[in-house]
Amino acid sequence: MKKDLYAAILSGGSGERFWPLSTPERPKQFLDVFGGRSLLRQSVERLKGVVPPERILIVTGKALARATYRELPEIPRRNILLEPCRRDTAAAVATACTAVERLGGEKAVTAILTADQLMEDVEAFRRILAQAAKAAAATDAIVTMGVKPSYPATGFGYIKVGRPCGDVFRAERFVEKPDLATAKKYVKSGRYVWNAGMFVWKVSTLKAALAKYAPQLVGITPKDYERLPKISFDYAVMEKAENVLVTAGDFGWDDVGTWSSAGRHLPQDGTGNAVRGGATLLDCSGVVAVAEGAPIAALGLKDVVIVTTRDGVLVAAKDRVQDLKKLLAARNPAGAASSPRQKGRAG
Amino acid sequence: MKKDLYAAILSGGSGERFWPLSTPERPKQFLDVFGGRSLLRQSVERLKGVVPPERILIVTGKALARATYRELPEIPRRNILLEPCRRDTAAAVATACTAVERLGGEKAVTAILTADQLMEDVEAFRRILAQAAKAAAATDAIVTMGVKPSYPATGFGYIKVGRPCGDVFRAERFVEKPDLATAKKYVKSGRYVWNAGMFVWKVSTLKAALAKYAPQLVGITPKDYERLPKISFDYAVMEKAENVLVTAGDFGWDDVGTWSSAGRHLPQDGTGNAVRGGATLLDCSGVVAVAEGAPIAALGLKDVVIVTTRDGVLVAAKDRVQDLKKLLAARNPAGAASSPRQKGRAG
Repeated sequence: MKKDLYAAILSGGSGERFWPLSTPERPKQFLDVFGGRSLLRQSVERLKGVVPPERILIVTGKALARATYRELPEIPRRNILLEPCRRDTAAAVATACTAVERLGGEKAVTAILTADQLMEDVEAFRRILAQAAKAAAATDAIVTMGVKPSYPATGFGYIKVGRPCGDVFRAERFVEKPDLATAKKYVKSGRYVWNAGMFVWKVSTLKAALAKYAPQLVGITPKDYERLPKISFDYAVMEKAENVLVTAGDFGWDDVGTWSSAGRHLPQDGTGNAVRGGATLLDCSGVVAVAEGAPIAALGLKDVVIVTTRDGVLVAAKDRVQDLKKLLAARNPAGAASSPRQKGRAG
Repeated sequence: MKKDLYAAILSGGSGERFWPLSTPERPKQFLDVFGGRSLLRQSVERLKGVVPPERILIVTGKALARATYRELPEIPRRNILLEPCRRDTAAAVATACTAVERLGGEKAVTAILTADQLMEDVEAFRRILAQAAKAAAATDAIVTMGVKPSYPATGFGYIKVGRPCGDVFRAERFVEKPDLATAKKYVKSGRYVWNAGMFVWKVSTLKAALAKYAPQLVGITPKDYERLPKISFDYAVMEKAENVLVTAGDFGWDDVGTWSSAGRHLPQDGTGNAVRGGATLLDCSGVVAVAEGAPIAALGLKDVVIVTTRDGVLVAAKDRVQDLKKLLAARNPAGAASSPRQKGRAG
């Protein structure tokens, strides 16, 4: 256990992408469909032996306080930082920085981690986290945890990897989500890694970067949120910062961004379908079927996502699940084709 | 009102083809999704001014007695004939014959009608029923109510129409469900009508036909069912009988045999989908969505049937709904992918 390592887990998800299983009251990080424990719980257990509970902080929405206390009883409640409103990741990271400085001072090293992603190779994650922490402690750089791409993903941002610097590398530049052709080039080149949104810094380093690029965020706490802009940490700081290092390992990372990608992490039925709960599939392939409500019976379908809860039933073409927010926005409680049960569920 | 006309409505459906909305306890004829009233109720109301309630008989399963009493309070309970077990239509027709003879004697004319089909043009139905009844009363023929085909259906049997005989025609022969090419030829020829499974006879005529082709059915009542074979009336009598007449009119008949064909009779959403209950469809076409349970949200689908109840959710390719029985048979309550809630639902 690295004595001086802190971890701040960002747990502010809003729960739209996994509707109807996820809702504003139970966003993605609380779902236990991937591996039996919630993603939030997994993100804490992954730190066992690396960061003790009293040095783990959780940054989450006020409305999720009780659910978080219940899910993570070992984390001291004062370490659970409650955001009164959503202000994106820059505010969350700066709030974590303020809290860590109080606990550990200017030299404390902190890993910003995510609450709603999967990492299949926990040992590799711990090893790479240790490399990043070592580099962050030894330098005045922010060390971002890049992930060696296993396929040409178009859903993630990439980081161009520069020359080695100890165990890690210089980060040359951040690039937005590419189209497929560009993503293929990136993967083929071997010089790009996925931006997993996790990074490690020393309090003094982060404070200096905030002071330079986002001075209104220095020393903030949740009480200051109302006056803050909504802005991501990548945009506010990372893409501008000059001294950024990056890891380039592989720890089986997946952000499980949609029901479609979730299929990979659900039990497989042996005929190309992913099934959880009571579901009978006949002549189906590429189907993701999750039954938490009424059991599913599916016939003759290809590449379709079906999710049932008592509150709603989603049926979507797999290649359209990224438009789930649009679908939820189209649900009009006042409309003729809507039921009263839909009211207030779309959030 | 024709003084001597009786009607026997066959209401023995088992409720598999409209799962999960239909169940053994609520088979298709009790569904009210097509027009607000149940199909059974519609089949009785269609006879208003033609056959009085005391001359309407219902042949149904014992398990459906209470549901039938509730649905048809105006029908005398003694007219509701309860079958102790399923023995197909030959037994049901013969039972109706015995009952009508007791009520009206050998000259009584009876229309065998169905409880689970739609007829859009009730006036035309009544006119053609009157023609058939007149022919049945005047001759010693069984008069079957053929329906002029509106498209080359492959899901119905056909009857070849012969020379005219008063208002109706001689029936030349019964043919099985054809393939599409054959169905097209039938429709083009103008000489074939759909076999709608409805026919009219005088008690003396039917008794003579039963005596000749199925003597074990003469004079039967539900008490005799145990010893009877399972056999359809078409097969037992109709296809063999020599003296069969047929009507050839059009009264907007549809047997609504599957969820796919049901779409035509549900409210249309204006973008090629049929929707009933709480359902939001985005970029869908040809979708049939019926929500009696949790509301449906569907995205990017084409030609899919979605039906939700609290007991189950069906999602099926439209061109596969005829295999629904196979799907229900595949639901294995003991299997790993099944939920306990599925138990005993497949009926």
